[in-house]
Amino acid sequence: MSDKGIILFGHGARNREYVEPFHRIRAALLMLDPAAKVEIGFLELMQPSFEMAVDALVVRDIRNIVVVPIFFAPGRHVLKDLPQLADSATDRYPGLAFEIAQAVGESPAVIAAMARFALDSAA
Amino acid sequence: MSDKGIILFGHGARNREYVEPFHRIRAALLMLDPAAKVEIGFLELMQPSFEMAVDALVVRDIRNIVVVPIFFAPGRHVLKDLPQLADSATDRYPGLAFEIAQAVGESPAVIAAMARFALDSAA
Repeated sequence: MSDKGIILFGHGARNREYVEPFHRIRAALLMLDPAAKVEIGFLELMQPSFEMAVDALVVRDIRNIVVVPIFFAPGRHVLKDLPQLADSATDRYPGLAFEIAQAVGESPAVIAAMARFALDSAA
Repeated sequence: MSDKGIILFGHGARNREYVEPFHRIRAALLMLDPAAKVEIGFLELMQPSFEMAVDALVVRDIRNIVVVPIFFAPGRHVLKDLPQLADSATDRYPGLAFEIAQAVGESPAVIAAMARFALDSAA
């Protein structure tokens, strides 16, 4: 258990089902640690927004937030847009501290799981 | 081992490092099955294109291709663009058969690995 809040940061999309893997990741994370403070926050096109995720953590007295980009690779949205969102949130809530984790696609375990899934799909 | 070819299908991006997780997934897959016939194919913005991936498999006498969408959720690119790409390829190579797998983000093992990564990032 950690006293840090977690934001699962996604791009967002026009189709509603885009949110589903985020709900599944959050549910799986809460299975691993039922006390985790984890919110979903999107860059654009759908809600909850990143700002809403921050608000939801702040009202729970969280002051340290780790943002985990649910992206395969760090691109502009992770390297430029996300730090700007974090800076804006720090302007709104002085004392808030953000860490930005690697994109999930950089995790060797995630890579291995995707490889296994691809191979099994062709079995 | 399977006699099917595999295409890891991605969106593509302007930044070159976007290709890296695809290379890592392919390498991990080849660790699991060194004889796998696996190619990377992008929808847009970068190469190899989907068409190039198909060509690379066809020259190896592959006639059955499983396309694995490296997407978190199936959206327009997976549900509309990808079947069109597969249809075009079948026009070019009669006798070619495509299966489209679920998006990797729908795999419970991938979801679990992303959840673990997110939780560890906040530890």
